Amino acid sequence: MGLEKNCGLDLWSKYQSGERNLITDVPGVTVGHCTIQSEDHNINTGVTAILPHQGNMFREKLFCASSIINGFGKSAGLVQVGELGTLESPIFLTNTLSVGTVLTAGVKYMLDQNPEIGVSTGTVNVVVGECNDGGMNDIRGMHVKEEHVFEAIKNADVTFEEGAVGGGTGMNMMGLKGGIGSASRVLKIGEKEFTVGALCMTNYGTDKDLTIGGDHIGRRIVEAKKAEDKGSCMLIIATDVPLIDRQLKRLANRAAHALARTGSYSGNGSGDVAIAFSTANKIEHFNTQPFMQLEMLYDDDISGLFNATVEALEEALISSIYHANTMEGIRGKKLHSLRDFL
Amino acid sequence: MGLEKNCGLDLWSKYQSGERNLITDVPGVTVGHCTIQSEDHNINTGVTAILPHQGNMFREKLFCASSIINGFGKSAGLVQVGELGTLESPIFLTNTLSVGTVLTAGVKYMLDQNPEIGVSTGTVNVVVGECNDGGMNDIRGMHVKEEHVFEAIKNADVTFEEGAVGGGTGMNMMGLKGGIGSASRVLKIGEKEFTVGALCMTNYGTDKDLTIGGDHIGRRIVEAKKAEDKGSCMLIIATDVPLIDRQLKRLANRAAHALARTGSYSGNGSGDVAIAFSTANKIEHFNTQPFMQLEMLYDDDISGLFNATVEALEEALISSIYHANTMEGIRGKKLHSLRDFL
Amino acid sequence: MGLEKNCGLDLWSKYQSGERNLITDVPGVTVGHCTIQSEDHNINTGVTAILPHQGNMFREKLFCASSIINGFGKSAGLVQVGELGTLESPIFLTNTLSVGTVLTAGVKYMLDQNPEIGVSTGTVNVVVGECNDGGMNDIRGMHVKEEHVFEAIKNADVTFEEGAVGGGTGMNMMGLKGGIGSASRVLKIGEKEFTVGALCMTNYGTDKDLTIGGDHIGRRIVEAKKAEDKGSCMLIIATDVPLIDRQLKRLANRAAHALARTGSYSGNGSGDVAIAFSTANKIEHFNTQPFMQLEMLYDDDISGLFNATVEALEEALISSIYHANTMEGIRGKKLHSLRDFL
Amino acid sequence: MGLEKNCGLDLWSKYQSGERNLITDVPGVTVGHCTIQSEDHNINTGVTAILPHQGNMFREKLFCASSIINGFGKSAGLVQVGELGTLESPIFLTNTLSVGTVLTAGVKYMLDQNPEIGVSTGTVNVVVGECNDGGMNDIRGMHVKEEHVFEAIKNADVTFEEGAVGGGTGMNMMGLKGGIGSASRVLKIGEKEFTVGALCMTNYGTDKDLTIGGDHIGRRIVEAKKAEDKGSCMLIIATDVPLIDRQLKRLANRAAHALARTGSYSGNGSGDVAIAFSTANKIEHFNTQPFMQLEMLYDDDISGLFNATVEALEEALISSIYHANTMEGIRGKKLHSLRDFL
Repeated sequence: MGLEKNCGLDLWSKYQSGERNLITDVPGVTVGHCTIQSEDHNINTGVTAILPHQGNMFREKLFCASSIINGFGKSAGLVQVGELGTLESPIFLTNTLSVGTVLTAGVKYMLDQNPEIGVSTGTVNVVVGECNDGGMNDIRGMHVKEEHVFEAIKNADVTFEEGAVGGGTGMNMMGLKGGIGSASRVLKIGEKEFTVGALCMTNYGTDKDLTIGGDHIGRRIVEAKKAEDKGSCMLIIATDVPLIDRQLKRLANRAAHALARTGSYSGNGSGDVAIAFSTANKIEHFNTQPFMQLEMLYDDDISGLFNATVEALEEALISSIYHANTMEGIRGKKLHSLRDFL
Repeated sequence: MGLEKNCGLDLWSKYQSGERNLITDVPGVTVGHCTIQSEDHNINTGVTAILPHQGNMFREKLFCASSIINGFGKSAGLVQVGELGTLESPIFLTNTLSVGTVLTAGVKYMLDQNPEIGVSTGTVNVVVGECNDGGMNDIRGMHVKEEHVFEAIKNADVTFEEGAVGGGTGMNMMGLKGGIGSASRVLKIGEKEFTVGALCMTNYGTDKDLTIGGDHIGRRIVEAKKAEDKGSCMLIIATDVPLIDRQLKRLANRAAHALARTGSYSGNGSGDVAIAFSTANKIEHFNTQPFMQLEMLYDDDISGLFNATVEALEEALISSIYHANTMEGIRGKKLHSLRDFL
Repeated sequence: MGLEKNCGLDLWSKYQSGERNLITDVPGVTVGHCTIQSEDHNINTGVTAILPHQGNMFREKLFCASSIINGFGKSAGLVQVGELGTLESPIFLTNTLSVGTVLTAGVKYMLDQNPEIGVSTGTVNVVVGECNDGGMNDIRGMHVKEEHVFEAIKNADVTFEEGAVGGGTGMNMMGLKGGIGSASRVLKIGEKEFTVGALCMTNYGTDKDLTIGGDHIGRRIVEAKKAEDKGSCMLIIATDVPLIDRQLKRLANRAAHALARTGSYSGNGSGDVAIAFSTANKIEHFNTQPFMQLEMLYDDDISGLFNATVEALEEALISSIYHANTMEGIRGKKLHSLRDFL
Repeated sequence: MGLEKNCGLDLWSKYQSGERNLITDVPGVTVGHCTIQSEDHNINTGVTAILPHQGNMFREKLFCASSIINGFGKSAGLVQVGELGTLESPIFLTNTLSVGTVLTAGVKYMLDQNPEIGVSTGTVNVVVGECNDGGMNDIRGMHVKEEHVFEAIKNADVTFEEGAVGGGTGMNMMGLKGGIGSASRVLKIGEKEFTVGALCMTNYGTDKDLTIGGDHIGRRIVEAKKAEDKGSCMLIIATDVPLIDRQLKRLANRAAHALARTGSYSGNGSGDVAIAFSTANKIEHFNTQPFMQLEMLYDDDISGLFNATVEALEEALISSIYHANTMEGIRGKKLHSLRDFL
């Protein structure tokens, strides 16, 4: 639901939010979490699943692209997205050392739905993004199991929680409690209304850099700790504007601008990776004709969408620290909610 | 010289500026302009030359990389920079339609200095960047001539003017008079002090988006004109930190963050291109040994330099509109200096 | 016209050639040369112009992509092709040091046709490719003038000469006389017949590596000179198969395979650059609707086109040395036609 | 051991092989397999581990780069290799659907060796390559377990088997039994001798395209089956020549040339991915100084290494089908050894 109206934070937005102010304002998109925590505060991790549409993703692929803002990261599945320009699985978010487990579970989920895979047709490309939650979570314990992935998928809905949930459970953004944030923007192109939605898993930046709508709040709310801009950020962009993969890469490239608006300069250790997909054109796996008819926005008319995308991403980033509650983690580490300082 | 101390603008910098607060604070770098203007205000264009060191650039190349933030641009020379990771000529900045002329002049300048080129050794790669000054300049007239390039080179010095000069003469940034801006930052790595310098040619953005140090000044100083984020921006980064080309690409990638700090989302028509070079290791063209010894910063220690680079670029961007004077151009177009609103 | 039927060379092709066995078998494509030579053999250079269609290229752009097989080259215009996925000018081929002049002339040609450029609409991106003909030509003399570019355009036709003509006049391929070669292949996709055409400007490789259809002819026909794989190769691919830019990049990537078939390993100094465009979908500059309907081949059905593209490119490469006549150049250098050894 | 001297196949090599004619001729490199097969021929898969040096890979990283010749593939770990230019784990090869399991096991192996990971230092990037062995193997059964990865590591040695072993057990190259192949080349640079080694996992191409040293043997030895150029190929390159990551990418790019020499045009479904690393410079994870001294080959002297790399890769590709024995797989599928046709 992004930022509340009266929270006292102003992002100077030009575009209106969608109905839920979530990535799920893009018709067809659902999101589910599985949050994994232990009573002793040592385990704080999980999985978030973004389902790009409600059909069979392998049989009906979507145009997709990624942008590596800073590649200190271990995402899976982006090579094929780059070559073929398509997404054919949900997008999963988890902790860095659990990418393998989530990938395996994601493959099993796809195999279950598609008995042809690996027999009469090729294999499947599953996309997994990650951030390092080792500051709050016993990441070496590798506590994410395959069933957690299936549970995240099962939980997928148009409404979902933000904050320290799912893949974002143990994250740390700018010295505050990070996690999952989401927002959306609506814009008119021609006569028609479209939506761009964002979902971010935030784990980046140094405390004193936090900037909200131009306000250098980070200098006030915490004592400068000279912390490095470590961690990472996954930024997922969904839209129903008809775009091809090259245009979606252009959208994804704007993740850098959104990160910068919040005070980040994408430090060395930050795996800042954006993935953008469009729900408008579906590419059939079992095509019966060699040619496909599709619709595409002229690039000449894309600037407004760039702007709306940056706004949705910016709000999603800030929303993650707004919704996350103050939390204790492994080795006695404590992270505050942004709300503690408003 | 970047922004004046008492100008009332605060960029919230963490790093100190170098002595001149110009890209020429990086030892060896000089900059020269040739400004071309007509009395009737129809011609407002020119050439800026950045000399990366004072020796023979072809014989002693520098590590270099570029980053295409948004590739709606017509720069020359970047393909070879990408493959070989080296810069072997000055960097020239001019208007979009004059890239060919400046390239030809740049080649002639290099041929003059190097009689072996094209006879006993290979050819030379000249780098030219551009923005579209057609809003203020009779760009179709193609008024840049080869002698203007030679003059810009001849004028190269450690001190140089900022504002509506050289390649920046006819530029338009966020509805204000753009042009050339420069700044620098000093940072300590280990026991040693290093400098990163920036020089930008600014021609991007819509008026109402202008943001300075978090202040959304663009919403106040001009009436919103619904102008698109057109135009372009060339961002040149120089440093004496020993970096290889991959690391310089990482620096250049941070140009997106600097643009975002000023309110840009890199609109469709904006050719936002960054070029970064390091003066630390010189790569000989006529090497006598097959192997070269070189020094390289560990990437683990690069985050501070990323931050300082974003700061230098941000100040260079704002400095361009601070130093540019209010000006009249072709078709009665008038652009104001930022100083008119402070 | 590619290789003659009875020339004794077998490329083991699987696909048939088009009617002319030239890139101009792709409907709408024409090619023109301007050859520049002096009686004293010192000047051997020129310009080749490829017109992708016969309308106004700026107003009706084509999907396009490039692939940098080895980027030791100085092409112009590829940055914007990468960002927007479109070609909006003819493609020009010339010598390395004349890129600036040809670019300027190309811009003037486009300005003449489009009075809106630089006034009421943006600028234009002209694509120029090059190889270094300094071995045969007084390249330092920069003998290509703007009028040569206009003449090449004027000469554009569906029939054109191959060999030591136009931009290929002074080129050197594998120790033989290189130049311009062209070929085409026809393939059926679904119920419809399509064409892929290739035009290459060849200036690469060492003599002893030349391989034709698997025959290591280079080991026989010349004494091994330990020459390095220097020089470059421009490879232009045209097709009427409806492809978007990402798919055209995939086609262009196969230029490496074609070069390899002729014995090249793309040596350090070889600027091997491929550019591919499709004539099937035209993208209007002055679009009246924000959305475009287009047709696209499913990637699943693209393999045959990859194979046909490699075949067309391979034949175009060999055709250049087949058609080039034995020639004398600057400094007494003499290069033989492949035909001298058949 | 590559191809035997008297096997009747001639690759027209210019460079000599190393002592073992294996990738392990590069000092420090070892390779181990774990082959997984069932009596009923339904399971034919496995894991191959390439250890780039015998120390702690996380603490002493190597320069590394990858090249995506055709990205229809699901490799893990390449994003970070691209950003940081380093390899910090073994390289594992397995089947497509087992990447997740191998990644998890690889992470555990690295955690075991490095107790600081995820606690006092960052996470670790493990590289996994894959091909689809579904034609011969019950790939949906996901029979690769974590212990198989540990066994492959344990088996690592300077001598190792080629053919249908390890990750290559169920692979299919050009209609013949593919698998693992390896070879090496020795070359002199300056006064010193260096080695480049290749290891390939081959699963690509159509039967009739197979070409060996220019001989179109594929047209003779099998009936043309109109099979598409599906499958994939992983190509690993090791060298002790001191190269930085950009230069290693240039080496990896030459994988296209090697594939082409064997008759491939990299069909749509072929995930052709090359990874190259140099053992010459070790980059410390826990660096005590901010700057590193390193050695680098001048690019001007790299062409011979390009050529030797293509030769080593070509022989490794052919060696895989030479050493693989005729084998039966799932659903009654049978694949022949190349040796059956010599």
